[in-house]
Amino acid sequence: MDLKKYLRDIPDFPQPGILFRDITPLLKHPPAFREAIDQFKRVYQDQQIDSIVAAEARGFIFGAPLALELGVPFVPVRKPGKLPFQTIAHEYELEYGRDKLEVHVDGIEAGQRVLIVDDLLATGGTVEACCRLLEQTQAQIVGCAFVIELKALKGAAKLSPHPIHSLVVFD
Amino acid sequence: MDLKKYLRDIPDFPQPGILFRDITPLLKHPPAFREAIDQFKRVYQDQQIDSIVAAEARGFIFGAPLALELGVPFVPVRKPGKLPFQTIAHEYELEYGRDKLEVHVDGIEAGQRVLIVDDLLATGGTVEACCRLLEQTQAQIVGCAFVIELKALKGAAKLSPHPIHSLVVFD
Repeated sequence: MDLKKYLRDIPDFPQPGILFRDITPLLKHPPAFREAIDQFKRVYQDQQIDSIVAAEARGFIFGAPLALELGVPFVPVRKPGKLPFQTIAHEYELEYGRDKLEVHVDGIEAGQRVLIVDDLLATGGTVEACCRLLEQTQAQIVGCAFVIELKALKGAAKLSPHPIHSLVVFD
Repeated sequence: MDLKKYLRDIPDFPQPGILFRDITPLLKHPPAFREAIDQFKRVYQDQQIDSIVAAEARGFIFGAPLALELGVPFVPVRKPGKLPFQTIAHEYELEYGRDKLEVHVDGIEAGQRVLIVDDLLATGGTVEACCRLLEQTQAQIVGCAFVIELKALKGAAKLSPHPIHSLVVFD
């Protein structure tokens, strides 16, 4: 199944000049959504993943089902003030200003083999912040998995040396 | 399996005097997360659900896997400015100020049998807003499904006449 067929191009979103790749048609087509999760499963099922980490909000849509499929814990990464228990945080630069991500201190244990899941690899800022956050826990980042990769934006270089896998790649 | 065992009480979050029920231990325990999805599936698999709707962010964690299990579309409801295609919106009152939820115009069709999924029924504000939003599409709301219901806050009355089902109820 060609998953690209279930992505919709939206010109000038969220800003003029940006071509946004919309995943909602894929979510609306059950065989395509299932196929995306199955493709992730085939790549990672033999990699001894201990936990799946995903950042809100779209990361949850793919991370949670994959965690269930692999039978491993699902650990949410959230914006500040959302997680109720004690957290560790990583603050990072945005184009304008700064942002911060948090994870519960008991979410990940040292030495665990962790997979980060998100819908989109663009410039890589959010997932790089997840990597920095997880590195504080001394977890081992096995990889970063994406539904869509926008290759021209060179996000993969930012995540190096962590291996990435993307289901659909746009040059 | 007693799902209540996998919820953690956090006193005084997000404000003094509030006892927060934390779902992250459940997400971290794969058999419990799986059991929650299976319990939803058993309740709704014979109810001819056409689509599952969930609001960001925690609603996605349960709504997306349940949509995959039932083999039906997953339709995200989001805060303003997040959905890239044409949307319909519903603005609603909060304790302080107003908020707004959006869904894509092509997310739900008139007459579809829709299930709304969220992690928590407290005062019911967010899910009531989802109901009002979906009523604009002339969808039929088959029910509202929650992992946790805080009965004392009387959210179910606010969602009436839509039937609700909660996996774990706190009096």
